[in-house]
Parts: sequence; structure tokens; C-alpha cells
Amino acid sequence: MNKVAIVVLSGGLDSTTCAYIAKNKGFDIVALHFNYGQKTLNKELETFRAICDVLDIETKKRYEIDLPFFTKIGCSALTDKDIDVPIDGLDDNIPITYVPFRNGIFLSIATALAIKYNSFDIFIGVVSEDGSGYPDCTKEFIKNQQNCINEGANTKHHITIQTPLIDKTKEQIVHIAKDLSVAISKTWSCYKDEFEACGVCDSCRLRLHGFKKAGFKDEIKYKATDI
Amino acid sequence: MNKVAIVVLSGGLDSTTCAYIAKNKGFDIVALHFNYGQKTLNKELETFRAICDVLDIETKKRYEIDLPFFTKIGCSALTDKDIDVPIDGLDDNIPITYVPFRNGIFLSIATALAIKYNSFDIFIGVVSEDGSGYPDCTKEFIKNQQNCINEGANTKHHITIQTPLIDKTKEQIVHIAKDLSVAISKTWSCYKDEFEACGVCDSCRLRLHGFKKAGFKDEIKYKATDI
Repeated sequence: MNKVAIVVLSGGLDSTTCAYIAKNKGFDIVALHFNYGQKTLNKELETFRAICDVLDIETKKRYEIDLPFFTKIGCSALTDKDIDVPIDGLDDNIPITYVPFRNGIFLSIATALAIKYNSFDIFIGVVSEDGSGYPDCTKEFIKNQQNCINEGANTKHHITIQTPLIDKTKEQIVHIAKDLSVAISKTWSCYKDEFEACGVCDSCRLRLHGFKKAGFKDEIKYKATDI
Repeated sequence: MNKVAIVVLSGGLDSTTCAYIAKNKGFDIVALHFNYGQKTLNKELETFRAICDVLDIETKKRYEIDLPFFTKIGCSALTDKDIDVPIDGLDDNIPITYVPFRNGIFLSIATALAIKYNSFDIFIGVVSEDGSGYPDCTKEFIKNQQNCINEGANTKHHITIQTPLIDKTKEQIVHIAKDLSVAISKTWSCYKDEFEACGVCDSCRLRLHGFKKAGFKDEIKYKATDI
């Protein structure tokens, strides 16, 4: 029997590539998706299901977790209807799209599932170097979260948070996705829109930049592609 | 203006005493309650609201957070309808009432609120020494969780997880509660029942034992009090 991995899967390019990496390493995947009131919630859920289909993940091993409280907390352009998603590019500050301690919450819930499935491995597609500027995507955070998990969980084994993309640039991630034949056309990264990707939010910009540097054309449709 | 504290408040004796301690230290309280599919959910919610009333916590600073996914995960006598709440007392093992990584999840969500309210202090009434045997109630876990929070949150200040009861025995907690005039009759600790406390689940046993050693009579009603 294969070892089980809990994979946090939004359906974006990074998390999807991360799921392919887990599959490629021979793990039996338990896929974990969060509806946390993000503005592209419906599209992300559709994407999650499509990626699960492609990866042949059993229905009972697909967890769609509702976390409606994120909209009560707000404070982020992704979850607060009073804050617009920025379209002018990143600077050196923590972006307004940072959702308060989102990855801490996601990884804590992933831990509960790891306990349930007696899994030693949680995969998450965080990117530190060439990424978003989020404090909950750094190596230091992941190390601390892993220590915390291994203290508070009732496991006799050690749980590892696997972050195969944390050091990669978006260009490198595109190459990895191509090498693994990731169903790129089924992924979704846009923060802002659900039908055609906007092309100008931070997430679209990072993605388009990665494809351009890698020398490939992205396989999803954009409203604005003159970037 | 007073400093804000985020207080995790189930409405049990420990978390309620913890809330009184925060109030007594001059904090403005944001109270955080979780409906996670526990068998005594309705009673706990009623208790939470009553304690918030007594402590005069503003309505908009009372957060009742629904986490229905805990019942999907199960694996605990508190959330899994197929597992009975044990009534035969504790032994040296981690009890079946342990809810997978519950405090890790609760404290992660408390962190999101701390970011929202620019709060430096999260209070939680965990008890390590004379307590439940849960791995997510230890000093080592709290220390690791705090490190993790301070790496992953976008705060310029340091967040402290305040655990004023972690080293206390139940007997000492009863004395503290009495000293602070805690509304003991409004608290609820039973894992099993919602009308009269069962008196025989682990939580009732610990509570009754504490009152007995402290030399006080508990102020809530029990079905069975011959312990």
C-alpha cells in the first residue's frame, strides 16, 4: 500500500504542480481544498475538482472544507468585499492580498487529516523566493509550523511539511509543470475574476512572467495579455 | 484605550477563569468560541453567550466560529458519533476525547483575529499538569505554536500566547475562580450531556475532583455526584 500524503490543493499552478510531484513520488493523495470566502471561490472549487479528476483521486479522499469565518475577519483583498484586488503590481511591502495567517490555519487543518490518515507527509505549494511576499510562505515559517505540529499532534511518527517548490522561481515551476505534464489548462491562479483571468492582479502577473521567462505560452485565457 | 486580548472561550471552568484573568489585567476582550461539532455544542454556545454577558463583552467582539469539518474528520469521542464519550476515568494514554490538533487550529484562527485587532495577546485556558493528557495542552506545544505564529503573521509586534493556568492544578483553578468571583454556576465542562452534567466523563471527573480538593461545592447540577 502506498504512503498517504495530505495535499493542500487550491487548483493554482503551484499547488497543482505540487500535487503532481506527490503523485509522482508514489503517494496516495488526500486532497484538501478550502472555501474561505475568496472572491474566486466558485472557479477554484471547479478547478480543484477537475484536478482531482485528472489525478484520479478517490472521491472520499477529496476534502472541500468551508471556512466562512474568513470573511468575518476580512482584512484582505481576497476575502473582504470592501478591499479591491490590486492590479498595479507588487512592491516591497506585504501585499493587501495576504489573508491573515491563512497557511497557518490551512496547515493546522491538514494536520488533523494527517492524524486521521496516519500520514507522515503534508504537501503545500508555497513559494518563498520568487513569490508573493507573504510571511506565511517562508522556509522559517514552515520550519516553525512543522515543529508546532509535531508537538501538538498525537502521532508516534514525525510529520514533514513537504514544500518542493519553496525555493523555485515561477520560471522553474513552469518547467517542472511541463516536465510532469501538468494539466495547465485546467489550473486557475487569478485572484480577481472567475471567467477569464484578469492578467493584471499580482497572481496573474507572477504567472505570466513565469511562462514568459520559461519560453512557453500559458494555456489559460486572459483578458489582458499585453504584459 | 485598553490593550486588546483575543480569548479562546469554550465556557468551561478553565477558559472562563482565563477570561476573567484577562479582564482583571485590564484587557479589552475579543471572545472567540468554536462550534466544531462537539456533542455538547448547543450548551457550550449558550454558556459562551452567558459568560460574554457577565463579562460585558461587546456583541461585535464575540466571534462564534463554525468549523463543521471536524465531524468529517472525526477520530474523537467529542466529534464522532460512532465513538462514545468514555466514563471510566483517565489512564496514561492520550484519551479518545483528543480532537485532532484542535488547539493548533483554534490558535491559528485566534492569530487571524489578533492580526485584525492589532492584538499582542492570545489567552487560552490550557492546563498541562493536572489536566487531560492532551498533547496540544503542553508548554512545549504552546512555545512552538507561538514561534510559528510570530513567523507567519504579518505583525510588527510579537504575539504572546498567554496560558495563565497551564501549571495549575484543578484545585488551584477553583481557588482562582473563587477569588475572581467567576460565575461558576454559568460554566459548563461536561463532554457528554447538555442538561445536567454527567459527572462521570473525564472532564466532569477532573472538575469534581478539583472542587472536592479545594473544599468547595460545585455550583452546577450533576446527574451523579457520588465521586
